[in-house]
Amino acid sequence: MQEYSKSKLNRIKRGQNRATYDIERINTILDAGFIGFVSYTYEGKAISLPMAYGRKDNKIYLHSSQANRMLLALLEAGEMSMTVMHLDALVLARSGLHHSVNYRSATVFGTVKKIENDQGKSDALECFMEHMMQGRWNEIRPMHPHELDRTLVVEMTIESASAKVRDVGVNDEPEDESLPIWAGLVPLKQVAQHPISDDKLPENIAIPTHVMNYYQANQ
Amino acid sequence: MQEYSKSKLNRIKRGQNRATYDIERINTILDAGFIGFVSYTYEGKAISLPMAYGRKDNKIYLHSSQANRMLLALLEAGEMSMTVMHLDALVLARSGLHHSVNYRSATVFGTVKKIENDQGKSDALECFMEHMMQGRWNEIRPMHPHELDRTLVVEMTIESASAKVRDVGVNDEPEDESLPIWAGLVPLKQVAQHPISDDKLPENIAIPTHVMNYYQANQ
Repeated sequence: MQEYSKSKLNRIKRGQNRATYDIERINTILDAGFIGFVSYTYEGKAISLPMAYGRKDNKIYLHSSQANRMLLALLEAGEMSMTVMHLDALVLARSGLHHSVNYRSATVFGTVKKIENDQGKSDALECFMEHMMQGRWNEIRPMHPHELDRTLVVEMTIESASAKVRDVGVNDEPEDESLPIWAGLVPLKQVAQHPISDDKLPENIAIPTHVMNYYQANQ
Repeated sequence: MQEYSKSKLNRIKRGQNRATYDIERINTILDAGFIGFVSYTYEGKAISLPMAYGRKDNKIYLHSSQANRMLLALLEAGEMSMTVMHLDALVLARSGLHHSVNYRSATVFGTVKKIENDQGKSDALECFMEHMMQGRWNEIRPMHPHELDRTLVVEMTIESASAKVRDVGVNDEPEDESLPIWAGLVPLKQVAQHPISDDKLPENIAIPTHVMNYYQANQ
């Protein structure tokens, strides 16, 4: 098992039994979604904003227009952190204190740089799009050079990370278990609904296999 | 329409057509979820972590154990920001550049203070739990005083906020619309699955109405 080394930054102090530093497990959490909360400092204040991302090996790819305040601030800082969370269940206990949620959450820390050359940008955008929906990149219209020029692509190298996972049942005080109060889980899940074709499509363009695969995999 | 005033901090520069400062609309986004990404600065680095929250009027309530690194840092700073996002659809365009997502996202900024007295803490925790699941607070075992003592309750007063919403279809370049490439939306939704009773429940404890209401409202 390969792990990120623990430092003051990524070490989890509260709920250590839920913590993991395992690289594969953290990658699995990152790959289960494509929206991360990227944090930056603006005028001394910490702010986080949701961004779509792609991952390949220990790299995270973000993109935006060339004028994006957050990505420009991250590039100036030379580093960033991003948190991804999947909410899996409400944990409804007999006591208020033991209410909780089941979840998988990962926070990654690392250095960032701008990708300057067109091939590197195109490869990063392919990774980004394939992370969102496998099979789509090769089916869309190739990017025009002026579109690449308008796009700011940032590559983060993950240097450190940690994750927390809660995936168990209710954990009430033993003396509360006989109370006449219902306790249990309500599982939560993000699902896809049936794809809706753009009304400007030419006739006879069916929903492609890669889109139906995504729909069926997210039921 | 009552709005948050715009400042350098909360003014949205990119995608102004998606921006809103309307207080009611922002509250609706906050009330549609209960997990926010709270940002803080740790050793000069901006980090965000997911936390459950409750909202009442212009107050946001968070809680944790008394030793939570993030909440203690927020209290020391005296201020915080939190971002909430709901992902509503993948927007699959003919070109890479116009791929997007439909979403509702709100970022709130404000001051924080610790709630010290037991009644204030209990009221905040009631708000917190009712925000997660309406009707639950009155059905659970009342908190013991030593449980309240172990709990750190933080009240944020929202001073400023902004939100971004994208809720439209595909927006490709007009010259791309005749291409033989499928484009459209894949709606995404968080749903609840059937509640699972804790296996330590005494016999004859049915799933209560407030839990079934939540389940049915989240289909």
